[in-house]
Amino acid sequence: MAGPKGLKNRGYSHSDVDERRRAVEEFTGARLESISKFCFSSEAASKNIENMIGATQIPLGFAGPVAISGDYAKGEFIVPLATTEGALVASVSRGMSAINESGGARTGVFWDHMTRAPVFRVRDIDHSREIMDWIDANFGVLSDGVKSTTSHGSLHSIEPYPVGRSLFLRFLFDTGDAMGMNMATIATEAACRLIEAETGAVLVSVSGNMCSDKKPAAINMIKGRGKTVAAEALIPADVVERKLGSSTAAIVETGYRKNLVGSAMAVTIGANAHAANMVAAMYIATGQDPAQVVGGSMTVTTFEDSGGDLYAAVRMPSVEVGTVGGGTRLPCQSEALAMMGCLGDGGARKLSEIVAATVLAGEISTIAAQAAGHLGKAHRELGR
Amino acid sequence: MAGPKGLKNRGYSHSDVDERRRAVEEFTGARLESISKFCFSSEAASKNIENMIGATQIPLGFAGPVAISGDYAKGEFIVPLATTEGALVASVSRGMSAINESGGARTGVFWDHMTRAPVFRVRDIDHSREIMDWIDANFGVLSDGVKSTTSHGSLHSIEPYPVGRSLFLRFLFDTGDAMGMNMATIATEAACRLIEAETGAVLVSVSGNMCSDKKPAAINMIKGRGKTVAAEALIPADVVERKLGSSTAAIVETGYRKNLVGSAMAVTIGANAHAANMVAAMYIATGQDPAQVVGGSMTVTTFEDSGGDLYAAVRMPSVEVGTVGGGTRLPCQSEALAMMGCLGDGGARKLSEIVAATVLAGEISTIAAQAAGHLGKAHRELGR
Amino acid sequence: MAGPKGLKNRGYSHSDVDERRRAVEEFTGARLESISKFCFSSEAASKNIENMIGATQIPLGFAGPVAISGDYAKGEFIVPLATTEGALVASVSRGMSAINESGGARTGVFWDHMTRAPVFRVRDIDHSREIMDWIDANFGVLSDGVKSTTSHGSLHSIEPYPVGRSLFLRFLFDTGDAMGMNMATIATEAACRLIEAETGAVLVSVSGNMCSDKKPAAINMIKGRGKTVAAEALIPADVVERKLGSSTAAIVETGYRKNLVGSAMAVTIGANAHAANMVAAMYIATGQDPAQVVGGSMTVTTFEDSGGDLYAAVRMPSVEVGTVGGGTRLPCQSEALAMMGCLGDGGARKLSEIVAATVLAGEISTIAAQAAGHLGKAHRELGR
Amino acid sequence: MAGPKGLKNRGYSHSDVDERRRAVEEFTGARLESISKFCFSSEAASKNIENMIGATQIPLGFAGPVAISGDYAKGEFIVPLATTEGALVASVSRGMSAINESGGARTGVFWDHMTRAPVFRVRDIDHSREIMDWIDANFGVLSDGVKSTTSHGSLHSIEPYPVGRSLFLRFLFDTGDAMGMNMATIATEAACRLIEAETGAVLVSVSGNMCSDKKPAAINMIKGRGKTVAAEALIPADVVERKLGSSTAAIVETGYRKNLVGSAMAVTIGANAHAANMVAAMYIATGQDPAQVVGGSMTVTTFEDSGGDLYAAVRMPSVEVGTVGGGTRLPCQSEALAMMGCLGDGGARKLSEIVAATVLAGEISTIAAQAAGHLGKAHRELGR
Repeated sequence: MAGPKGLKNRGYSHSDVDERRRAVEEFTGARLESISKFCFSSEAASKNIENMIGATQIPLGFAGPVAISGDYAKGEFIVPLATTEGALVASVSRGMSAINESGGARTGVFWDHMTRAPVFRVRDIDHSREIMDWIDANFGVLSDGVKSTTSHGSLHSIEPYPVGRSLFLRFLFDTGDAMGMNMATIATEAACRLIEAETGAVLVSVSGNMCSDKKPAAINMIKGRGKTVAAEALIPADVVERKLGSSTAAIVETGYRKNLVGSAMAVTIGANAHAANMVAAMYIATGQDPAQVVGGSMTVTTFEDSGGDLYAAVRMPSVEVGTVGGGTRLPCQSEALAMMGCLGDGGARKLSEIVAATVLAGEISTIAAQAAGHLGKAHRELGR
Repeated sequence: MAGPKGLKNRGYSHSDVDERRRAVEEFTGARLESISKFCFSSEAASKNIENMIGATQIPLGFAGPVAISGDYAKGEFIVPLATTEGALVASVSRGMSAINESGGARTGVFWDHMTRAPVFRVRDIDHSREIMDWIDANFGVLSDGVKSTTSHGSLHSIEPYPVGRSLFLRFLFDTGDAMGMNMATIATEAACRLIEAETGAVLVSVSGNMCSDKKPAAINMIKGRGKTVAAEALIPADVVERKLGSSTAAIVETGYRKNLVGSAMAVTIGANAHAANMVAAMYIATGQDPAQVVGGSMTVTTFEDSGGDLYAAVRMPSVEVGTVGGGTRLPCQSEALAMMGCLGDGGARKLSEIVAATVLAGEISTIAAQAAGHLGKAHRELGR
Repeated sequence: MAGPKGLKNRGYSHSDVDERRRAVEEFTGARLESISKFCFSSEAASKNIENMIGATQIPLGFAGPVAISGDYAKGEFIVPLATTEGALVASVSRGMSAINESGGARTGVFWDHMTRAPVFRVRDIDHSREIMDWIDANFGVLSDGVKSTTSHGSLHSIEPYPVGRSLFLRFLFDTGDAMGMNMATIATEAACRLIEAETGAVLVSVSGNMCSDKKPAAINMIKGRGKTVAAEALIPADVVERKLGSSTAAIVETGYRKNLVGSAMAVTIGANAHAANMVAAMYIATGQDPAQVVGGSMTVTTFEDSGGDLYAAVRMPSVEVGTVGGGTRLPCQSEALAMMGCLGDGGARKLSEIVAATVLAGEISTIAAQAAGHLGKAHRELGR
Repeated sequence: MAGPKGLKNRGYSHSDVDERRRAVEEFTGARLESISKFCFSSEAASKNIENMIGATQIPLGFAGPVAISGDYAKGEFIVPLATTEGALVASVSRGMSAINESGGARTGVFWDHMTRAPVFRVRDIDHSREIMDWIDANFGVLSDGVKSTTSHGSLHSIEPYPVGRSLFLRFLFDTGDAMGMNMATIATEAACRLIEAETGAVLVSVSGNMCSDKKPAAINMIKGRGKTVAAEALIPADVVERKLGSSTAAIVETGYRKNLVGSAMAVTIGANAHAANMVAAMYIATGQDPAQVVGGSMTVTTFEDSGGDLYAAVRMPSVEVGTVGGGTRLPCQSEALAMMGCLGDGGARKLSEIVAATVLAGEISTIAAQAAGHLGKAHRELGR
């Protein structure tokens, strides 16, 4: 397939970017003027993208401040949301406002491990057992091997799942403030080479889908991946009415019929209104991997009538975020993390709690809007 | 909760944006210099975001060109990918290169409907039946009502799911080149008001989660949402070896152990390697709703040995895209659509096919890399 | 593998049964005295079993009578339950007693089709489409072909699901009062031979698992298989207290935390307490296929507070029952069907409604017991 | 609701049974002659059923002998199958015959725990944590408490799942040769009372559906319930052809398109052909709980081409069986267990392995039949 020669340019300098973009313009006939404008160094982005031709600009708004009393997030936070869906920021802000008037959100991290699950070809049940026994006996060796591949991560445990001639090993890692997928992949590969050499198992793929990355998977719902995090708030009845324009009873009923019964009827993993929206907007703003919105979409949201007040909570089994590495190094993304005091070391769990509080706010607000019958109205006025 | 007064500014002008951003800087202590730079009109983005303080810049690369022979996409396409995950663009490009040497990808759209499923409170089974009967008898009236709310969409059908005192009605719409969620919501609300008035059903929520939007839901896997689209290619054995550095046998085995057995063991919806990655990068580039990556993550990818050659295919049950409205109006996003000749009317199905072809390329390349044991290597070199 | 020669006896007479049983006794050293006793003709069971050596006797109890106002079941029914789980019959009876004091259960059948979904190997997307087009154009021919294989069944529709080189066709049949699996299989095979001959599709399996028979499958939850049936009752507050020893509030809370939230957390298909128990006991008593308990286990049970009274309902998406053919011909099983006036023609939908009412009773009673904290006590006293 | 007074008889003697049955005959007008015949003591069945009116007789056949080399099952076993589905016993026998000619089946037990998961109402996240901390600190006390309720079982571990104001605790027990549900329920209740007293948690239900009993649940698929057991066999190519009338290639293709792709498309939990059939027939024959067929239905069956030979395997995540207590005490059921040397102590894991080997045989045979296109034929000739 022919094409302007700039298409083959593989360089990372600004002029390489420009040459490629001009070649794309020539090939496609499209003018890429807005795409040409970007404020970061293309060389610095060389770890983040290939064939760069410019940048996409996503409108960035803020919600909050929201008051959080978390294990790691403590204080008032302004949350950056990158989105093109009108009404989303306003809705989240409304939810945060209600949370603030209720004393803030309580958040906490229950579990925190990144996973990678290679699949091996084995001979049979007995071979699987030999391998599992070898791993049990040599966990220290494997753990040391992992340390040689990374200065930040460590091996937590390995869970084996034999099925026929396939043996899946789900590796769990502590990855510090990195989201940790690459670290986990590289460390797992090293371990796999050792397992292959010592046991005769044949590595078929370093990822065997029991990880499970970027797929809706019950295993992540049940065992967690990344951070398993929760947020809750207790909204007084009058705040529900004044700030949310609804009532505790209406919200609880909507949570019951929609989130719980509707989700059961649709056979979903998770049960929520639109957790993915908040997750996507925060992930894009802060340089997370937006494909991992899938993990966030498995949130379970619950509402209860607490003596007329509204108890609202989210449990997010799989918040896969980091505050070092990946997209977090880019300037807009770094700034967004800095807004929340989450940039760099010590930020990842804090960030996951702010994600949960933001999802809580968005869930409260949207369910309240649906309960009050004005979802369509909001979209007509703000978002169309 | 106090704060700089600019936080309360609700305006859409550039100076409003600047005032808000400065207030956020003051509140958070973070410098938001990169975020301050954006090339689009904040007023024009008023339908896309509230509380705007600037923009996030996502590196944009391209993959391709890729040759597609589709129902709607015909020709060679350069695909814009907005991502911060190193190695992704290179991997997709490699897959496209293999596809091109094999005569291109064949794509097609099987189904195309946007859905919205309100939930009503009803009295009992008999009441549900009265309402379902009324809807059957008055479909024309409901359809006319829908037409009064939208010039582009039309009502296709309504599927009822009664369960206890909840009645779910899954509305299917033709929404032209709009993704159609807002149109569907507004039209459904209008229909719901009529149903309430005529049948005594009480609308609890215009979205009852059987839609199902932005949640991993088997109902979308089975019945589709947005476009249900497929792509396939037949890669000659020598192209597999030369371009992909693997073999048909190795790829087929990886597809079997990982995508199929691994996914069954993890209890996923869908069975693929990383469809969400390509979907996210294209959705962000082209102004789609990135939370709808969830729908794309339910892809089923299959590989077969075809006389030594590699047959590869994806079935994507739920590609929710549009080429008018929403984020597509923004300049970078419009340009990205224009690169593929997908901007505006007539573009949506074409875009969905290019999505499928791109996912196919990414699946082929990643599975080949995993089969050949060099996934970690790619991340070490390109993405870390 | 050697063994007493009686093991090879393939006859159906009583003496063949005896010879085989003696051979089994000789081979295993076990005395099979109770197994030797059966009251039906072994020849008559020749369509139900091979290698017969006797019978298993399952204790049979009854629950009820229960008052039902159904589409098909109208009146008071005594329900036969074959079980070895102590407390089950007592629990169901208690639930029925509460239902009776509340004016009985309302039941209804929403959908009724047996399905079989063959999978074909096809060349590609275009080939799948040719086949789908051919089926559309020749539905009458296929329907006539079906009629030639069965006097009781007819073809309702065919739903195609292409994925890569596999084409799944989900056939829906009306099967009268037969459960209909065999009829559906034979008719589908006939249709498949025609499709193969006319389109070049290659039948790989007459069952491609999208049927889906005896597997927990969302497709059956969403689209139904066999009868999709519902039952409901409105239990006055005083009946809840007096008969069930609980309260509406406690039962609603248990339904919420256990059936809905707990099921979401466990990622189940369906949301109920123990529907499978009642389904198994009725299926065994009435000669249904006990492996189809799986379909019944996907029930959605809901409880609501209705002004202090308890509204309770079940939706059973997949009740696969018949009243002719299969195990229904055996004498104990026929008698059990006769107890409910369900033997033979006209009985199947009626039976499905009685199943739903019985499941409703069991759900109410067990949830009430759990809500009142005396489940363990019941098992200690009745079932241990 | 009036009725013959015998309906109210609650006794367990033979004459009580007769009186009740006559009352049922009077009420329903049905003759229950076959049901009146049973060979066991109604008093002895008092732990298994209430309101007994007789028994249901299920034809009992045998499959095998099958050679098994297991962790617990070692030797040749004749397997009792109680069924009314014609062709099932013949099909399983055919599969066993192929297995025997291949050197027998290898089986093994990976995990073995019965579970019960109560749900508590708690105040908030902090309260959940206090409770979890208390449990950690007092596991010994809880474990001792469990011992006071049972002489056979012991507490293995407790897994907490907090979500909003619900705290689920999944208790894992070792239950020896009992299936263990009642033991687990009673022991869990005792533990719950202590937890309530010490932590302020309020027990809402001793079963919170994360157990998960008799429901299709991913949690059991992933973490197991009862025994997680596997079976495998390597069938030489000539045995595949001669005994199974098919070919390795055809069986592997059927396994791929049907079990794997078809199951993914239907969104099932598990991936098999008809594991529930064998499980149901063995469970009924041996006095297991037939509602737990649901657990068996989540089997993953895999087929691979091993140099032309056929490697076949099943992984059954949730085989919930016992050889003491429950229905195993009844005489027919005891005899069926005795046939396999599984009666009483030391039998449960052995039985679970024979279940797995039998499921393997049935899977091989049915997939071979479908691959060879003669499933319908078998049903026409044997089962209709």
